Amino acid sequence: MGKKITSREEDYSKWYNDIVSEAGLAESSDVRGCMVIKPYGFAIWELMKSQLDIMFKETGHENAYFPLFVPKSLFEAEEKNAAGFAKECAIVTHYRLKNDPEKKGKLIVDPDSKLEEELIVRPTSEAIIWKTYKKWIQSYRDLPILINQWANVVRWEMRTRLFLRTAEFLWQEGHTAHATKEEALIETKLINDLYSDFAEKYMAMPVVKGYKSESERFAGAEETLCIEALMQDGKALQAGTSHFLGQNFAKAFDVKFADKSGKLEYVWATSWGVSTRLMGALIMSHSDDLGLVLPPLLAPIQIIIIPLIKSKDDPKKILDKTNELFESLKSQGIRVKIDNRENSSLGFKLNDSEVKGIPMRIVIGEKEIDNNEFEVFYRHNLKKISSNFDNLIDIVSSSLTTVQTEMITNSKKRLKKNTHEVNTYDEFKELISNQSGFVIAGWDGTNETEEAIKSETKATIRCIPENLDSKGVTCIYSGKPARYKVIFSKSY
Amino acid sequence: MGKKITSREEDYSKWYNDIVSEAGLAESSDVRGCMVIKPYGFAIWELMKSQLDIMFKETGHENAYFPLFVPKSLFEAEEKNAAGFAKECAIVTHYRLKNDPEKKGKLIVDPDSKLEEELIVRPTSEAIIWKTYKKWIQSYRDLPILINQWANVVRWEMRTRLFLRTAEFLWQEGHTAHATKEEALIETKLINDLYSDFAEKYMAMPVVKGYKSESERFAGAEETLCIEALMQDGKALQAGTSHFLGQNFAKAFDVKFADKSGKLEYVWATSWGVSTRLMGALIMSHSDDLGLVLPPLLAPIQIIIIPLIKSKDDPKKILDKTNELFESLKSQGIRVKIDNRENSSLGFKLNDSEVKGIPMRIVIGEKEIDNNEFEVFYRHNLKKISSNFDNLIDIVSSSLTTVQTEMITNSKKRLKKNTHEVNTYDEFKELISNQSGFVIAGWDGTNETEEAIKSETKATIRCIPENLDSKGVTCIYSGKPARYKVIFSKSY
Repeated sequence: MGKKITSREEDYSKWYNDIVSEAGLAESSDVRGCMVIKPYGFAIWELMKSQLDIMFKETGHENAYFPLFVPKSLFEAEEKNAAGFAKECAIVTHYRLKNDPEKKGKLIVDPDSKLEEELIVRPTSEAIIWKTYKKWIQSYRDLPILINQWANVVRWEMRTRLFLRTAEFLWQEGHTAHATKEEALIETKLINDLYSDFAEKYMAMPVVKGYKSESERFAGAEETLCIEALMQDGKALQAGTSHFLGQNFAKAFDVKFADKSGKLEYVWATSWGVSTRLMGALIMSHSDDLGLVLPPLLAPIQIIIIPLIKSKDDPKKILDKTNELFESLKSQGIRVKIDNRENSSLGFKLNDSEVKGIPMRIVIGEKEIDNNEFEVFYRHNLKKISSNFDNLIDIVSSSLTTVQTEMITNSKKRLKKNTHEVNTYDEFKELISNQSGFVIAGWDGTNETEEAIKSETKATIRCIPENLDSKGVTCIYSGKPARYKVIFSKSY
Repeated sequence: MGKKITSREEDYSKWYNDIVSEAGLAESSDVRGCMVIKPYGFAIWELMKSQLDIMFKETGHENAYFPLFVPKSLFEAEEKNAAGFAKECAIVTHYRLKNDPEKKGKLIVDPDSKLEEELIVRPTSEAIIWKTYKKWIQSYRDLPILINQWANVVRWEMRTRLFLRTAEFLWQEGHTAHATKEEALIETKLINDLYSDFAEKYMAMPVVKGYKSESERFAGAEETLCIEALMQDGKALQAGTSHFLGQNFAKAFDVKFADKSGKLEYVWATSWGVSTRLMGALIMSHSDDLGLVLPPLLAPIQIIIIPLIKSKDDPKKILDKTNELFESLKSQGIRVKIDNRENSSLGFKLNDSEVKGIPMRIVIGEKEIDNNEFEVFYRHNLKKISSNFDNLIDIVSSSLTTVQTEMITNSKKRLKKNTHEVNTYDEFKELISNQSGFVIAGWDGTNETEEAIKSETKATIRCIPENLDSKGVTCIYSGKPARYKVIFSKSY
């Protein structure tokens, strides 16, 4: 039996770490801030990745691959972007080790191998990609370029947490080039909507979409759109961002195109990304004190079958039935597994399937076969449904959809319940101090107000939703007319 | 119309570069030795990757992800492995840039951010992985571990060529841990056979399988199995390797397990990999002087349809027929594309499809529709087949298999034709100096002979095939009894 999982009430942060560890999702490595993504965790990431990849391709994007390293001179070309990442980047300065003359069997950096120009391990790839796009773009006929890259990036974070904030993480980064501002703006929004659809449909995690305030924008962007999710502890988690980069990178790398009339113009750009941080969001959206809870669409194992063979039983009878069910479910395209570990007790197996968040479970023993009555156990609500053998497949099959839908509905309810609109700063402070989720309030649009609220309450503007009317609203802090109604929250 | 491709006869090496460039597969980047893999090239790599991934999973392997960096102390733990890679590795020494006080807008490495211990960008991941496995392995119940990782690695190569040898490349690396030597040996062979099957079936590239001689083994391995392919210029290309690592890494990282009797034993290991180098192998196996030739199973576009609309034609009639064919082929799961670029001539499009190696092509014009006679053009043999519209789908569908089979047959013939067995060193030198492919010869098994032959002829032992009987054979160089019959060749 594994370690008991700390309850959310006792220690939310420890609860999260326990789930990551006990479900076998990831662990810290010997490299500061870098994680090992374990097979079960990686299998979930692979499902996310393949679905996102389908959605990118359906919207006309292609994958490509650009270098891991960015020469310093390219890195610094777009100054705001460089300033945003300069303080947290891994820098390659040498390319050879040699034997340590003083310690046999040990190696030291060979000082003769110093690079003429240092290489930055990409924290994001705008610089190296726009340097490349310069070669690819001459005329309007070369546009748009709609490219995505699946890659690892490195940001030297000082305080790291598995999946949520790590020095190295996996992500996808889209980098598009357009002839017009309008087209780039449409792309920025298209992708943010795509992220939102993915989060809701596949992760069963509804999000709020909106613009970032200037202070929270991506370094080098003109506008940043984002999706913000609400975790069970009432804190927000930025789950994806899509940036309208204007002509900033085109100007930094001198990328112009000849339009139809032959006139040279700078190219318009977007970039966008989601990362293994989504794993953290998924874990914190659905899991409970028993362990991980996974929506069926992202579950590497959608149903587990546990054969229960007691000493007096006929093993063949039970294993045959188990295999029969396994094969029927598998042939329906369901991700099914048999837990046939010999040295583990039934209790261990039941617990293990719950900790791992496997959506459905069926135990097959002599009793079930003799009575022709089988129970499907559902992880998300801990309920059971009984059925005869013939109907099992239909029930499991249709449950994949129902469970997914129920999880979405529950998450939506939780989001709604934890979203409050306030008119006064006192109400605001009350809600924020209780970490009560998303707080909608009027904001005068100034940096000063945003900064003051942040330093007094630790709440930040998560986003400026498009559809909130600010007419007649006043700023909760300054009392001036509100420029926007925005969503505040403490956040990850 | 693109640049003309240099013929193989004129300059084989330039021919290769022209194809990589003109087919839009990859290009050099601003980072020394690192390439940009362009969308069309990456799409081919994705097809390889997804097929290999299926084959790894079918044989019980799971994917996971380990850190990009290896701390120096771990890197040097397995001394032979470290020595093998120390001279060509990228080393991270600092983690922050700061503003250059002397040049506004420029950045310099912040000397205060020097790392206590340098980090090596992984050239291969045995060290970091075995350090992790130590935590995962206590008893025989934890074994075997069968893990694969898709990742980027960096080896600071001085002379690079797109796909064939680059400083950064993409690959998969399997790392398995076993309770017994026998099991590890079986795994090593299983994977080498899997690589061989993949190369033959999917890449249409038959290979020779065998063991590496000691001097050509992976640094840290007890045995290296490999697959060797023969390129059109008569040079060999090592396309994949599978290493039996013995207990070397287990000893370096002190990884022991309790066997069933409770006795502590060191764990047995394998590692194995193929990389984007396979792209180079694929290109050089099939392409001709017109451009790339792709086997249907790895072609991102298996068939291209070009609508031909002349000024007197009814565009709707032609486009409707084009779409009808497109939809029917697509519904069969065939990767089909319509080339509907408006500003390009038919000649440009025909040429483009040939340079890109698209296996089949159909042009649809008024004439074809009126006569109900359509031509399917085959890239691999430049032949055409005529058909009425109703039979087109069947022809295209079945051609996917026939073309693949014909390409395999042709490659096998070429391999056979370019494999020669010799008994004397004179014959050997004659063949090697003419770069005539694989040369089978007796070898006395000594390093001295291997070294002498290499320095005199530039030929190396590509592998020691398992099934060649060396009884009664003498070594071509020393005249002593041959220990093995081996395959020599010049190589990439």
